[in-house]
Amino acid sequence: MSTPSEQSAVTPTVTVIGLGPMGRSLAGAFLDAGVRTTVWNRTPGKDGDLVERGAIAAASPEKAVAASPLTVVCLVNYDASDAVLRRDAVAAALKGRTVVNLTADTPERARDTAEWASGHGVRYLDGAIMTPTTTIGTPEAVFIHSGPEALYREHRAALDVLGGTHTFLGEEIGRAAAYDVVLLDIFWTSMAGYAHALAVARAEGITARELAPFARGIGSILPAIIEQTAEEVDTGAFTEQGNPITSAVSSMTHVVHTSEAHGIDAGVMRAAEGMARRAIGLGHGADGFMRVAETLGRTA
Amino acid sequence: MSTPSEQSAVTPTVTVIGLGPMGRSLAGAFLDAGVRTTVWNRTPGKDGDLVERGAIAAASPEKAVAASPLTVVCLVNYDASDAVLRRDAVAAALKGRTVVNLTADTPERARDTAEWASGHGVRYLDGAIMTPTTTIGTPEAVFIHSGPEALYREHRAALDVLGGTHTFLGEEIGRAAAYDVVLLDIFWTSMAGYAHALAVARAEGITARELAPFARGIGSILPAIIEQTAEEVDTGAFTEQGNPITSAVSSMTHVVHTSEAHGIDAGVMRAAEGMARRAIGLGHGADGFMRVAETLGRTA
Repeated sequence: MSTPSEQSAVTPTVTVIGLGPMGRSLAGAFLDAGVRTTVWNRTPGKDGDLVERGAIAAASPEKAVAASPLTVVCLVNYDASDAVLRRDAVAAALKGRTVVNLTADTPERARDTAEWASGHGVRYLDGAIMTPTTTIGTPEAVFIHSGPEALYREHRAALDVLGGTHTFLGEEIGRAAAYDVVLLDIFWTSMAGYAHALAVARAEGITARELAPFARGIGSILPAIIEQTAEEVDTGAFTEQGNPITSAVSSMTHVVHTSEAHGIDAGVMRAAEGMARRAIGLGHGADGFMRVAETLGRTA
Repeated sequence: MSTPSEQSAVTPTVTVIGLGPMGRSLAGAFLDAGVRTTVWNRTPGKDGDLVERGAIAAASPEKAVAASPLTVVCLVNYDASDAVLRRDAVAAALKGRTVVNLTADTPERARDTAEWASGHGVRYLDGAIMTPTTTIGTPEAVFIHSGPEALYREHRAALDVLGGTHTFLGEEIGRAAAYDVVLLDIFWTSMAGYAHALAVARAEGITARELAPFARGIGSILPAIIEQTAEEVDTGAFTEQGNPITSAVSSMTHVVHTSEAHGIDAGVMRAAEGMARRAIGLGHGADGFMRVAETLGRTA
C-alpha cells in the first residue's frame, strides 16, 4: 500500500510486450483501469480481443515501446525478452524510457540485461509475478520487484493497476528473480512429489480423490514447518525436533522401494535421499532435516 | 468418533514394543489414561521414566506380549519388527492375541507380516501414525489403520486412548502402509525442495527468515491445488489451467541453472525436470502438470 505522498501521477499510457496468457492478463488489467495500452507480440494474431477492448496494436516493437514512457515485458524467458529489447531500433526507442521486465528467468539473466540497459540509457526494473494469470487485477495477485528504488516509486502507481500486493525487495536487480527461482524450486519440487505420489497411489489402488483429504493435511502442515525451520537454518542450530535425517532417509527408502516395486521411476526421491545421505555422511545424521540446506551449500 | 454402541470395553492392559521417541509417546499416552502398560525395548535403559510413571518393564519380548491381549508395536521398520515378532517364543506367546503394528514400512512388508501372522494364529492389524510424537494423546494425532474390520472395532477403544483421529482404510492389510508411503512421498519431496531452495536462497544472499513469508504463501496454495487436481487425475482429463508442462519445465531449468551456477547440486530438480520432459516427449506438453502422474505410471 502506498500513501498518497508516495504515489506518482498515474501513468496515462503503457506498452505491454508479450501476449502469452500472462501478458494478455496484464494488458487486460491496464485496459480495465482505463490506461491507454499499446501491445505487441512477436507472433501476430494474439491481440484481437485486446484491440476490441481498446488496446492499440503496434506494427513493430520499436513503435510499441516508443508509444509509452513505461513498457512492461512478459515473455517466456530472457532469451525471448533480450531478442526483442536488444534490437538496435528498440534499444534506440527505449532510451530514457522505463522497462519493467516481468519475464521469469534466473537472477544472472536479470543482472545481464540490467547491465545492457544501463549501457543503452534504458531505465530498468526487474520483477516477478508469483500468482496465476487469473489473479491479475485482483487482490490475490502477488508481485515482487527489484532495481533502483526511485524508479520503482516513480512507476508504482502504474504497477498498482495490476492489482494485488507489490513488494520491493531491494536495489540489487537480481533479487526479484532470485526470490522467484527459490520459490519455484519449492513449488515445482512439491508438485513433482505430489504427481509421483499420485502415480504410486494409483498403483496401490488408491484414487487421487481418496488421497486428497490426507494430502491436504500434509500440505497444510508445511507453512508451520517453514516458519519453525527458518530460525534454525539462519542460525545454524539444527535441532532434531523428533525428526532426525536418519529417520527421513528411512521413510525415503520406503517410498523408493514401493515406487520401484510398481515399476514407477523414483528418480526424484532417489535424488532427495542422496542429498540426505550426504548430510549423514558428513556426520549430521542426528540433526534435523534442514541441516541438508547447509550441507548442500558447502563448497568443500 | 465412535458411538457408544460401537465401542468395545476399554482394554485394561496393553503392551508396547519399541521405545524410540514414538513408542515412548504411545506408552506414555496409555499410562496417562490409566491403562496397565507393559513395555519392552531391544536396547535396555529406555524404560526408566516410563516405569516411574507406572509401566511394567518386561524381561523379554515373549513375556511382554504374554502380559496383554493387545500388543502395539512401533519400531524403526519391519526388519526390526519382524526380528522381534518372528522369534519362536514370541510367536508362541502371541497365538490368539492381537498385534497392532504401527511401524512404518512398505505395503509389501505389511502384507508379508500379515501372512506370517495368519500362519501363526496371530491376530494382526497394520497402522501408521501421520503426525509427530508431540501430537500423541492430543486431538492433533492422526492414525490410519487397515486389516480385519471386526478386529479393528474390537480394539478401537484402546486405540482411542492414543488420542486424535483414527481412520479405518479397509480390510486390505497393506492399505495403511500404502497411504503412509504416498503421503511421505509428498512430504519428504516437498521438504527436500524446501531445503534445496534455502541453500540457493542463501547463495543469493536471501535468509530463510526473509524467504519465510513468501514460502508460506507457496505452501498455503498447495492444499487448493491438491483438491483441484484430484479430479483431473482420477478422470484423466488433464486441462492445462494456464500451467502447461512446457511452462513448468521452463521454470525448472531456471532453478537448475541458478543452483548449479552457485555450485549447489540440483539433482532433485533435474530428476523432476526429467519426469516432466518425459511427459512432453510422449506428446503431453500442453497438458497440465499432473499429466506427469499418469505418464509415470505407464508401464510401456
